[in-house]
Amino acid sequence: MAQVFTFDLEAVDQRARAGIFHTPHGDIHTPVFAPVGTQATVKAISPAQLEELDAGLLLANTYHLYLRPGDELIAEMGGLHSFMHWSKPILTDSGGFQVFSLGDRREIDSDGVTFRSHLDGSTHRFTPESAIAMQENLGADIIMAFDECPEPHERAYNEEALARTHSWAERSLAAKTRGDQALFGIVQGGVFPDLRAQSAEFITSLDFPGNAIGGLSVGESKADMQAVLDVVTPILPSDKPRYLMGVGTPEDLINGVLRGIDIFDCVLPTRLGRNNTVFVRAGGRLSLKNAPFARDQNPIDADCTCYTCRSFSRAYLRHLIIAKEMLSATLLSIHNLHTLIQLTKDMRTAILDGRFGAFAKPWLDKENSHQEKTS
Amino acid sequence: MAQVFTFDLEAVDQRARAGIFHTPHGDIHTPVFAPVGTQATVKAISPAQLEELDAGLLLANTYHLYLRPGDELIAEMGGLHSFMHWSKPILTDSGGFQVFSLGDRREIDSDGVTFRSHLDGSTHRFTPESAIAMQENLGADIIMAFDECPEPHERAYNEEALARTHSWAERSLAAKTRGDQALFGIVQGGVFPDLRAQSAEFITSLDFPGNAIGGLSVGESKADMQAVLDVVTPILPSDKPRYLMGVGTPEDLINGVLRGIDIFDCVLPTRLGRNNTVFVRAGGRLSLKNAPFARDQNPIDADCTCYTCRSFSRAYLRHLIIAKEMLSATLLSIHNLHTLIQLTKDMRTAILDGRFGAFAKPWLDKENSHQEKTS
Repeated sequence: MAQVFTFDLEAVDQRARAGIFHTPHGDIHTPVFAPVGTQATVKAISPAQLEELDAGLLLANTYHLYLRPGDELIAEMGGLHSFMHWSKPILTDSGGFQVFSLGDRREIDSDGVTFRSHLDGSTHRFTPESAIAMQENLGADIIMAFDECPEPHERAYNEEALARTHSWAERSLAAKTRGDQALFGIVQGGVFPDLRAQSAEFITSLDFPGNAIGGLSVGESKADMQAVLDVVTPILPSDKPRYLMGVGTPEDLINGVLRGIDIFDCVLPTRLGRNNTVFVRAGGRLSLKNAPFARDQNPIDADCTCYTCRSFSRAYLRHLIIAKEMLSATLLSIHNLHTLIQLTKDMRTAILDGRFGAFAKPWLDKENSHQEKTS
Repeated sequence: MAQVFTFDLEAVDQRARAGIFHTPHGDIHTPVFAPVGTQATVKAISPAQLEELDAGLLLANTYHLYLRPGDELIAEMGGLHSFMHWSKPILTDSGGFQVFSLGDRREIDSDGVTFRSHLDGSTHRFTPESAIAMQENLGADIIMAFDECPEPHERAYNEEALARTHSWAERSLAAKTRGDQALFGIVQGGVFPDLRAQSAEFITSLDFPGNAIGGLSVGESKADMQAVLDVVTPILPSDKPRYLMGVGTPEDLINGVLRGIDIFDCVLPTRLGRNNTVFVRAGGRLSLKNAPFARDQNPIDADCTCYTCRSFSRAYLRHLIIAKEMLSATLLSIHNLHTLIQLTKDMRTAILDGRFGAFAKPWLDKENSHQEKTS
């Protein structure tokens, strides 16, 4: 058996990679898209349905689980895998992103962050050490260094924040005690190529078993995101997985893999599902609430093999939405998750077959044509 | 193959019966409990989950589907089975019960009922003929005569209503055109044994392929419900299925089967599930929101074989409830539906084995002891 937390690079096609990351709860085949289970549940989806979707990795949020039900309670219950009944790999974030999103409810110093809970206004404090302790309580296979995720366009602030992020990465590493969890470092630096390069070099020097790129998909342009990836991924070691945090859309996944990314996560597919919106393979989205779907006997996508598309018409799904039935969120989320998971599998096959360029081309052509139209 | 809509009585144990009702969408093994899919979906449960629960029959509500999305739209979409992706038997009610529940929003005459929609106040009219036409559009295997369901304790009103119900039963029968649906008659008469006997005799005389008992579980005492069953079921033909509408609890199912009932339906298991409450085999209920469950590693019921009990602790279920996650409604509804469906299967096995009396005894003892305590 391969050693845990080693990454077997199976194939590289230009910069796109297919690999296997070994964890105590099984192998993660990359590229992989991780559905987000913020509160130890992927909203409206059961673990059995996630199993049927062949989700290879789930993400859970430390900030939310710390507040409710508490990371110590989850530790008492045997850890996240047991608590949420998921036997395959799990990744937890450090809580940093959520805390920094609290705006004027938090105060940062060089040691950590003090914040007021969005639930009841109570005061709490996260430090790199507490973020690791909480994640050790949760017991995910992959845990994340505590980092600061600033607004990406302010140069001076990004420089300050980056110094903290780097110091906190070292402290996160020092705080770690469990041997059965892989701690990933996080590259920050906003939209500034030199800061990103500096961060990638520093984080790489700490020799984490995997590296993440944070602070993207937070309001910057697609061109900025791609430029950052073009600077960062060539610096990151090729024998460790690369995780682009909080991304994204089908197009973002293609563009990420094209630039050497292996792991993605995003709330988008389930959030869209709860808002009556579905991905269609052609690259667009449909809002199924619209009246023209009332008598539409077609599935969402005739080529899709998900449970929803195999079983239900757009007319039925629209009925569930109009009638405010919970099943609509479940069925639409299943379709959207399937779309991204299947896309990562198709990319993986294309990379293994040495034809990722041809696979990605229609997506990139569409994107370029769209950019020309809107520029 | 057995002829559709015949009822094979496999075993009779005192008055309890085990049988098979043949329908165009397969055999219904009785006693059977039908989950309710009011708006063409059992709330928070997918058809695949219902399949795993081994639900033998589903109920859908004509009143709700007439208003939204419309019975004609469902007919265009190929009927209810195709629309909601359920290939096994379906039963629709006539819409009568919902319309009569509208209180001062409806007006009754001898021909039918005029009412205002609970959705938008618009005016509509149901007659026995329109109730059958709507149910023919929906296309369920079992459809119901249009009947009036009055408050059960007013004698004079129940006499009047019963005359209408009987006239409407004849008109329902005359209006029916499809050969692939079984129309069941409905016995009414409130809590009055003589009216109930008169109704059972009249409905029996119309020779429906199945007979239902309506107007129970609407506020009368358990003793009244049981007294009505004791009067009615001996009059109903033994070679046709007997359906007790809108019932119920595990105890009601035992008492119904004990008195010769074959088919039940009720919103209770899914409604309780959405209200954080679960059946426990011992015969009680738990409100899982309560604080003592926060660290309870046990399943809801250690003897239960449902997906929820096989997979999740009370602590996790309580967390989902407190965190307002939709998955709680799904998982609790699965457990509650499983409890009633498994109970009907266990009763069926006991009847086939000739030991229903012994099977029912602990339930009845518990009920008697409870009645002594509260009387």
